[in-house]
Amino acid sequence: MAQLRIPGPTPCPEEVLKAMSRQMINHRGDEFGEMMRSVTAKLKTVFQTQNDLYLLTGSGTGGMEAAIVNVLSPGDKVLAISVGVFGDRFANIARTYGADVTVVKSEDGKPADVDAVRKALQSDPKIKAVIVTHNESSTGVVNPLGDIAKLAKDAGKLIMVDAVSSMGGIDCPVDKWGLDVVATGSQKCWMLPPGMAFVSVSKDAWKAHATAKMPRFYWDFTRAKKFYEEKGQTPWTPNVSLVYAMQPALDMILKEGLPNVFARHTRIAKMTREGLKAMGQTLFVADEKYASNTVTAVTATKGLDQKKLNKILRDEFQVVISGGQQNLEGKIYRIGHLGWVTEKDIKEVLDALKIALPKAGFGSAK
Amino acid sequence: MAQLRIPGPTPCPEEVLKAMSRQMINHRGDEFGEMMRSVTAKLKTVFQTQNDLYLLTGSGTGGMEAAIVNVLSPGDKVLAISVGVFGDRFANIARTYGADVTVVKSEDGKPADVDAVRKALQSDPKIKAVIVTHNESSTGVVNPLGDIAKLAKDAGKLIMVDAVSSMGGIDCPVDKWGLDVVATGSQKCWMLPPGMAFVSVSKDAWKAHATAKMPRFYWDFTRAKKFYEEKGQTPWTPNVSLVYAMQPALDMILKEGLPNVFARHTRIAKMTREGLKAMGQTLFVADEKYASNTVTAVTATKGLDQKKLNKILRDEFQVVISGGQQNLEGKIYRIGHLGWVTEKDIKEVLDALKIALPKAGFGSAK
Repeated sequence: MAQLRIPGPTPCPEEVLKAMSRQMINHRGDEFGEMMRSVTAKLKTVFQTQNDLYLLTGSGTGGMEAAIVNVLSPGDKVLAISVGVFGDRFANIARTYGADVTVVKSEDGKPADVDAVRKALQSDPKIKAVIVTHNESSTGVVNPLGDIAKLAKDAGKLIMVDAVSSMGGIDCPVDKWGLDVVATGSQKCWMLPPGMAFVSVSKDAWKAHATAKMPRFYWDFTRAKKFYEEKGQTPWTPNVSLVYAMQPALDMILKEGLPNVFARHTRIAKMTREGLKAMGQTLFVADEKYASNTVTAVTATKGLDQKKLNKILRDEFQVVISGGQQNLEGKIYRIGHLGWVTEKDIKEVLDALKIALPKAGFGSAK
Repeated sequence: MAQLRIPGPTPCPEEVLKAMSRQMINHRGDEFGEMMRSVTAKLKTVFQTQNDLYLLTGSGTGGMEAAIVNVLSPGDKVLAISVGVFGDRFANIARTYGADVTVVKSEDGKPADVDAVRKALQSDPKIKAVIVTHNESSTGVVNPLGDIAKLAKDAGKLIMVDAVSSMGGIDCPVDKWGLDVVATGSQKCWMLPPGMAFVSVSKDAWKAHATAKMPRFYWDFTRAKKFYEEKGQTPWTPNVSLVYAMQPALDMILKEGLPNVFARHTRIAKMTREGLKAMGQTLFVADEKYASNTVTAVTATKGLDQKKLNKILRDEFQVVISGGQQNLEGKIYRIGHLGWVTEKDIKEVLDALKIALPKAGFGSAK
């Protein structure tokens, strides 16, 4: 079996895969309703929230779109904080639906500039909402989300968060930080296959929703609320198999304990970075305080052919990692360490890299 | 194991369920790309089309939303043909995104009135598109889609079709009928779990798409086209497990042969109707020419308590059927016979009904 070390989909434990193969039941029946209520309660524990929370059948990007279209109106001023591909995507979604978007952008590999965010908020009191990526998996940066949220909430703004590649692996206390809409994807820290987004909705978000005029049907929170509260259902037929699989996956997370899950991600990310540095690799995120605990990006230096590296790892070591996206294509490689991952997995990746790096040209140039 | 006889999700064959439990692979890798191209080609065979076809991670309703937002602009005149809940939903989606919708509505249990459609098209030359349900699973009606499509195409209109509960079970030759956008859902005739919509896009639909101004991001066909054509990928992480499962499911359909699959659905639907009539039941669709081959609706008559019937069937016979939706709640019961279904399955349902019907009050009143 190949070692899948991309930032999602991630490998799934045996119990989760087994649950995926359960026969269908009625998604409008009592048994499924109980299951929905049970997994929703467990998700809320991981989100550290008492807000409403919905399961949407779609990718993480669908959850991001839901976060935008449910609380905003065309013309609303939005401050988008982008530190990479996924921050740009969030801004793009808002723009697509008619928001008036100002972007505070950081250089690739750097986190959001909190001072720049403060200034942007001060300079335009008409800003209604802040949208931000918690963990930018395209560059391996984790943003200082608590600080950003404090600025936004102190200024009376809504804050919508793309926590697709952080929630469940990196501490993201939704209620403590006052996050209004938070979206994540099943294939990231949850040890689940892709196919669903999970989205929490605060009281402030509901207030905004009541007058929000962006068009929405499939992602509409009002419909999600009605079906969930009345019958533990979703308005449209959900990804039943994934709901089955959520039971063992969430039980594993809660049994390990949230603080322990976060500590394991911290420990394993550090082990990854230390191992890479020991091989002379240059971390793409220079300030390790902002290095992600779910994905590590590495700059291709000293003659390293990144595409060749990924190919050698895959063909000769059955280790699958990612390259760079868009403007970073060929310039970085990325190792995912989120969800179902242990020290042993990372040791295998590092051992493979040790042999593969020189084969892929590392060290052939200065 | 309970007999799941609702109009989706449907039971899945063992090979399909087994495929669902396969470990994750890279959704941006070559192996997955080949899989995507292979299942897409097979889907096109079932759609009987050479149009483009995309896999969207979402419910059937997501596919319907995609059909609307990709080819229309706010203000566009749309003729919606509704014969029930799903026809109303399609009209609703179009209205939500700003279309100017005229509805030609039939009474519950009756098919679309082709003459009324002709008149509506003639009376307003500004109509740009016709939207229509092929198989209305809320009432068990199959619409004369070929006739409707001919009217629409002869008049130079676009036609978008909700084939969620027909495609793969009832003949729906996309190219022969000139259907522009056709959406279906994995949990219906495909013998697959829910979680994906499959949508075909004609040349005329692409032309309309080029100037269509309804906002779209997640469902955007341009992004789907780009990722599929360049790399056999989807723009957002897809439901990988379902793509695995599509291989055996589509192979089963193609091995049985499309005409045989349609004939089996025809045969089994007839067997269902005959069996019901022999027990004194009243079919909700009076004209059997328009009775659906994937779901049969039955009027609760002669003292029958429909909810009690469904409960008895479930609790005492492990047979799960559906009730009526919205205004038909309590008034009809519905038996799904689509996808992985044989005569033996229907015999079990009919045998159970024979005992359950009098227990649920049938015959206690005139």
